[in-house]
Amino acid sequence: MGFRSVLLRASRARLRYSPSPEDPRFRRSFSQLLHSEPERPSFGIAFDIDGVIIRGRTTIGGSSHALRRLYHADGTLKVPFLFLTNGGGVPETKRSLELSELLGVPISPLQVVLGHSPFRQLVSRFENELIVAVGKGEPSLVMAEYGFKKVLSINDYASYFNHIDPLSQYKTWSLKQSFDKNCKLSFQSKFNVHSERVKGAFVVSDPVDWGRDIQVLCDILRYGGLPGKGNGHQPPLYFAADDLEYQAAFPCERLGMGAFRIALESIYNRIHSSPLEYTSYGKPNPSVFKNAESTLTKLALTTYPAKETRVSKNFAFNIIYMIGDNPKVDVNGAKKAGHPWFPILTRTGVFKGKDNDEHFPADLVVDTVEEAVDFILKKENIQS
Amino acid sequence: MGFRSVLLRASRARLRYSPSPEDPRFRRSFSQLLHSEPERPSFGIAFDIDGVIIRGRTTIGGSSHALRRLYHADGTLKVPFLFLTNGGGVPETKRSLELSELLGVPISPLQVVLGHSPFRQLVSRFENELIVAVGKGEPSLVMAEYGFKKVLSINDYASYFNHIDPLSQYKTWSLKQSFDKNCKLSFQSKFNVHSERVKGAFVVSDPVDWGRDIQVLCDILRYGGLPGKGNGHQPPLYFAADDLEYQAAFPCERLGMGAFRIALESIYNRIHSSPLEYTSYGKPNPSVFKNAESTLTKLALTTYPAKETRVSKNFAFNIIYMIGDNPKVDVNGAKKAGHPWFPILTRTGVFKGKDNDEHFPADLVVDTVEEAVDFILKKENIQS
Repeated sequence: MGFRSVLLRASRARLRYSPSPEDPRFRRSFSQLLHSEPERPSFGIAFDIDGVIIRGRTTIGGSSHALRRLYHADGTLKVPFLFLTNGGGVPETKRSLELSELLGVPISPLQVVLGHSPFRQLVSRFENELIVAVGKGEPSLVMAEYGFKKVLSINDYASYFNHIDPLSQYKTWSLKQSFDKNCKLSFQSKFNVHSERVKGAFVVSDPVDWGRDIQVLCDILRYGGLPGKGNGHQPPLYFAADDLEYQAAFPCERLGMGAFRIALESIYNRIHSSPLEYTSYGKPNPSVFKNAESTLTKLALTTYPAKETRVSKNFAFNIIYMIGDNPKVDVNGAKKAGHPWFPILTRTGVFKGKDNDEHFPADLVVDTVEEAVDFILKKENIQS
Repeated sequence: MGFRSVLLRASRARLRYSPSPEDPRFRRSFSQLLHSEPERPSFGIAFDIDGVIIRGRTTIGGSSHALRRLYHADGTLKVPFLFLTNGGGVPETKRSLELSELLGVPISPLQVVLGHSPFRQLVSRFENELIVAVGKGEPSLVMAEYGFKKVLSINDYASYFNHIDPLSQYKTWSLKQSFDKNCKLSFQSKFNVHSERVKGAFVVSDPVDWGRDIQVLCDILRYGGLPGKGNGHQPPLYFAADDLEYQAAFPCERLGMGAFRIALESIYNRIHSSPLEYTSYGKPNPSVFKNAESTLTKLALTTYPAKETRVSKNFAFNIIYMIGDNPKVDVNGAKKAGHPWFPILTRTGVFKGKDNDEHFPADLVVDTVEEAVDFILKKENIQS
């Protein structure tokens, strides 16, 4: 029996009646259940994922138990929280389902802020332009869900150019990107990749085939959007994040999107006269924390709309806890964002020190996310 | 009928007798045939391969015809020549067979100087040490043929460490490296990869999986030869070449081993306090030209030993022509090497200018390798 079922059963018990399945009151939707608690907390929590909640595909630091404490017994949210990660590669809708299943609590897509979530703000600029999406997972599906209409994954883009990757004979990718395939087929009638210039390149998630991706991005960027043809201006380049390293399943940190950016930039600046221009999103960029605060506010207002309607528009958190494992990314970002952010550092990921981090000290250092949640709930006088 | 058969038939005609297959004189070896011409030319030629002789897998610039002019009709060498390339990934024995087939002339392994050929000089230092070989093709076979006894390809080395590449789930390599597999099996009983430190890393040929290779090399180099364990000194790192770009089948140049080195170095220097230390071989390193001169001398002495035995030890070329497509690599290297090198630049590869290269001007610029050979043979009064 899943946690959600447990919560729903507990909810029925708390309501102090025993409804039959036919009872119309029993058929209340889950969103209605979410609204049954009137007290709106004046604090929120943002959780990093990799190195705090999970490592690889396994939950760590008592994360599952810690998160359950943020729900009422009836499954409604007790504390507004979201996940704030630089990771990505799948749409927020899909990632929320994956996290719900892994952690045994109901996570809504609104509670999942991925590295590439800010790309949504660029739809008005690139909606009908040819763009290329780079990275693991389903980068073109992510961008299409945001509303970009002419997006090709770099896998498909490269496949239009014979010999663009001189090492392709040594590799056989078995990526299953049915969306990309469909995209490609429908695109063939829409435009000609060999004559239309790419107007923007988006690194959505960690690139898989670095050599090919650096080669093809250099081809796109140095020739003004069309490999080998012309010398136009460099099209805009966006990175979802800039993590140099992050904690995955291997004992030492693994190289992240920031490392890929360094590789691309170092090479590009050697083969091209003008230095590479790009924009990086993701933590520690303060705009990401501002956006997370705004999302948490929406979540609080949606979850607790019954009372306080008069003051809803002026609602502001007294404090938002950022629980992360990476001093440079999580702590640094929360510090730069300022009020109301309160960074908490765990020892389950990148940071492994005994005391605090030397360069980016957190307001609190704990062993695990469970310890962090325990601290917060006690400090905020929340029963659990 | 192949060129070799043609040459052998012509040879028989020139000897002015019509031997039956039983005639013992007919059963002379090819090496004996090589020795039948007494005049030793005082010049030699070094040919770059990619962008001069072939592009991708296709011969270019009349290379096949040009090379045939360097042989006598009987298949013996008229002009001492070799291939001097920064490419590699297969042993010299195998590459010479591939080139013989592609070009229709008999090429001996001595005539093939690859990027990694200088690694042979390091056998005495690393013969019984655990080393890792990186790159396309059969890097560990190459090193084993040189005499290194404990070599693992980076593919196999990485396979011992679970989760070392967090993106492995997104890729499926279909590399066929039966040698590596055999190596791995026999190695398992010899030592433990999890406790024995890697004593040297060799980038033998262009890396295929840049992301994984940069990650694993960083793991080996920053932790003193054992991923995640200890903080020993960086083991020595060797690159077979340092080409930033080279001409392959695609119309624009492709990124080469030098680009990979820049990527690795830029990332390593960001995650480690001491800068990356490495040694690069390959053109334009003058030692490579010195070594090629010495090999050409051996070739001349082996091919024309009959006369002039008294002066053999003092034999020296008046001139060696370097025919290349890359000003920075071929011309620059030949210029730096000085006497007796004479750089000739073709327009079939990296260089596409009308006149001479601005930064590294060659002594002669021609359209194709055929034109270069024509110039040389006329200048040296060689009949063909």
